[in-house]
Amino acid sequence: MTLIGISGALFDFVDDPWKHVGREWEAARFEPDGLLVIEDGIIKDRGPRVALEPRYPGLEITHIKDRLIVPGFIDGHIHVPQTRVLGAYGEQLLPWLQKWVFPEEVKYKDPDYAQEGTRRFFDALLASGTTTCQAFTTTHKVATETFFEEASRRNMRVIAGLTGIDRNAPDYYVDSAENFYRESAELIARWHRQGRNLYAITPRFAMGSSPEMMQRCEQLKKENPDCWVNTHISENPAEIRTLLSLHEDCSDYLGVYEKYGLVGPKFSGGHGVWLSNAEFSRMSQKGAAVVFCPCSNLFLGSGLFRLGRATDPSSRVKMSFGTDMGGGNRFSMLNVLEDAYKVGMCNNTLLDGSVNPALQDVSEAERNKLSAYRAFWSITLGGAEGLYIDDKIGNFEPGKEADFVALDWNGGPPATAWHQSIALAGERPETMEEAANLLFGIMMVGDERAVDETWVMGQRLYKKSAA
Amino acid sequence: MTLIGISGALFDFVDDPWKHVGREWEAARFEPDGLLVIEDGIIKDRGPRVALEPRYPGLEITHIKDRLIVPGFIDGHIHVPQTRVLGAYGEQLLPWLQKWVFPEEVKYKDPDYAQEGTRRFFDALLASGTTTCQAFTTTHKVATETFFEEASRRNMRVIAGLTGIDRNAPDYYVDSAENFYRESAELIARWHRQGRNLYAITPRFAMGSSPEMMQRCEQLKKENPDCWVNTHISENPAEIRTLLSLHEDCSDYLGVYEKYGLVGPKFSGGHGVWLSNAEFSRMSQKGAAVVFCPCSNLFLGSGLFRLGRATDPSSRVKMSFGTDMGGGNRFSMLNVLEDAYKVGMCNNTLLDGSVNPALQDVSEAERNKLSAYRAFWSITLGGAEGLYIDDKIGNFEPGKEADFVALDWNGGPPATAWHQSIALAGERPETMEEAANLLFGIMMVGDERAVDETWVMGQRLYKKSAA
Repeated sequence: MTLIGISGALFDFVDDPWKHVGREWEAARFEPDGLLVIEDGIIKDRGPRVALEPRYPGLEITHIKDRLIVPGFIDGHIHVPQTRVLGAYGEQLLPWLQKWVFPEEVKYKDPDYAQEGTRRFFDALLASGTTTCQAFTTTHKVATETFFEEASRRNMRVIAGLTGIDRNAPDYYVDSAENFYRESAELIARWHRQGRNLYAITPRFAMGSSPEMMQRCEQLKKENPDCWVNTHISENPAEIRTLLSLHEDCSDYLGVYEKYGLVGPKFSGGHGVWLSNAEFSRMSQKGAAVVFCPCSNLFLGSGLFRLGRATDPSSRVKMSFGTDMGGGNRFSMLNVLEDAYKVGMCNNTLLDGSVNPALQDVSEAERNKLSAYRAFWSITLGGAEGLYIDDKIGNFEPGKEADFVALDWNGGPPATAWHQSIALAGERPETMEEAANLLFGIMMVGDERAVDETWVMGQRLYKKSAA
Repeated sequence: MTLIGISGALFDFVDDPWKHVGREWEAARFEPDGLLVIEDGIIKDRGPRVALEPRYPGLEITHIKDRLIVPGFIDGHIHVPQTRVLGAYGEQLLPWLQKWVFPEEVKYKDPDYAQEGTRRFFDALLASGTTTCQAFTTTHKVATETFFEEASRRNMRVIAGLTGIDRNAPDYYVDSAENFYRESAELIARWHRQGRNLYAITPRFAMGSSPEMMQRCEQLKKENPDCWVNTHISENPAEIRTLLSLHEDCSDYLGVYEKYGLVGPKFSGGHGVWLSNAEFSRMSQKGAAVVFCPCSNLFLGSGLFRLGRATDPSSRVKMSFGTDMGGGNRFSMLNVLEDAYKVGMCNNTLLDGSVNPALQDVSEAERNKLSAYRAFWSITLGGAEGLYIDDKIGNFEPGKEADFVALDWNGGPPATAWHQSIALAGERPETMEEAANLLFGIMMVGDERAVDETWVMGQRLYKKSAA
């Protein structure tokens, strides 16, 4: 048994800030001088240091000063084998896949290349403060194995699966439905719930899956109901039109996944930019989740995700946020928050009546505003709820795994520190409001340079080098 | 007479890439092993080093290795006194001004505060590779004087002017039309064309100017026809509606500035998100320019600037790009390019027929695509043309002022270097295409960390510290 303490300014969430409109701080907790007690990588206790410390005599405490300690970030949608082509110029979804993505991903059938790429991937994640991701790999079993091996080596909580595509991809890249089924089953047996690994049955996207492959996914989910399902949904208008021409019995994109019994808890659909109100409503009822990937939606010109609609209390959809690296051009969830804020504000303008007063929806416009509370909840506890892993991670509740990030609010471009100084009365945050203002500065003015340390299961895996 | 040489990989422009659709490289020049010869801060010669070096025996050459040397960046729209509040949370234009901006700007009537803020401003500019800006100051003469003093101290090419507002601002901030006129005239006499300073008559935005102040601007422009005019235009739908209710004789936003004789060459209107086709057309005919500020337009939710419309050859509008810091949340023109690309791609989707085939406009959609050529032209030669200073800066033509930036294509977040490695066959760029791919990586995956050195008038004013 190893017992350690971490002291510093702790910021985490106990509820969804969207449920506390106008009083979002009720969803958060801030301990300006807090203590985390960690036993074998699991949080045993948390609270004000002065109250807690006497209960653990002899506790070895690491003091993390002048930092905001927040739960590790959760990336709900990311493509491991696109690390090298992130943000490559410059098409919309379908031509971009053909030109840049498949030629790079196919390299991951070489175990050495897969290992190099996967190591670089995890290094970049940790340097960005991301401790958990739900990832796409490739059609090659070796790429998925390499992913789980590398995640295990770092003891990180991850979700991933063999990423199936058997049509609408180059011949050199497609898999067969049969092979996908067999290898997925083997991988589930080998990796699901081994250590911190979780398995997601992963049809890449509906247009890339024949009916046979979709049936195989359905079969896999029936045989392994504990597994996750991860895919894409309604990213691009051209994609949607093409898909529906292939599934004439479906009235919308979600309907294709419903036809094969995939939509329910633990289902994640990445993007959802063009989801209709009816699709949001069915996802809400079924407990399925959407993954909002704003960097990617802007970079590929997919469109503006309707954040205020997804968070409508009458049909609230579970949600995580994702980079969608390399369709997204950034590795850092802080950049995701920046672009998420921007997408929300642009949607807001359409709904606040300033463009067309007849379209005004003040409540939805308000929900489009990504405050620091909503933002950091979305990449910690909210993301964990969207991925159905909030029993394991997401905040500092006792019993959860001790993944966290120490944020230096002055890290970032040259103007950052002077900007942040307006948020503080003293040297460091003493109130929830000061802490929230610093977090907003980190997401809008800073970037992953704010990530000073990243800890996984109570071990420090990343420390920023001195500038 | 001081003669110096700079050798390295030179990349600049001789024409507008939008005029060379499908062959954009025709607008650019790339010398993988080039030489700049600089005499007293002015470019005397440029070309391949092997050809040029023998002509200048004894020339003292500074070799800048493993960098791309590009002209200094031009920021067409930035607010000096918002350095500390950049990206502050979180409203649309009008409430954001009241809550954050005016309370900060008023501090600049204190000369000490003005000096501290202005120094930090220029430090951040140079660290971002920006060597020229067209800036807003405040209603206080001292803030404008401090700006020109600090620019002179660094010998930077700048455009700015006393920033007038006499209504729709707090009492503690507004100026009178009379005082604005008198102080503007004094500042013009003192600073216009002194050193590298240029003066812009600067009514902050039409809604902040009474008819009396607009008449004073007209008078100032008549009395000083050589001066620039800098303001805002059509940023926000609510603003536009309010403005037109105050000017019932005007059919659109541009019409208000036209009424007072301000629209012509050397006129810059920041934003122009909601400009109509008719307004674009009149601006084109009159030689007036729009400043595209994508970080700001997204951050404040103002909307998506129609890049492909502004660049329509039948009514091409002169254009510079700007941060609009602090309405924009970044100091770096590289981040501006990132967001400009994203805005273009989102507009593109609306016009490529994928959302509504009936709205398809393939040519305009193509013009919305901000390639590396279009991007870097826009913040160098294109920006200089938009500001009518392309006789002075913007590329490496002999006779121009030697402002340039040495870009480290591997600078940026952790994944940058591996990403950039796909663009190169060897160790460094040998072809125009390789250089352009690196530049695209710099703008989408990197950030101002790519700025390794910034030179002004042949002097190095910024060198990045080693990480």
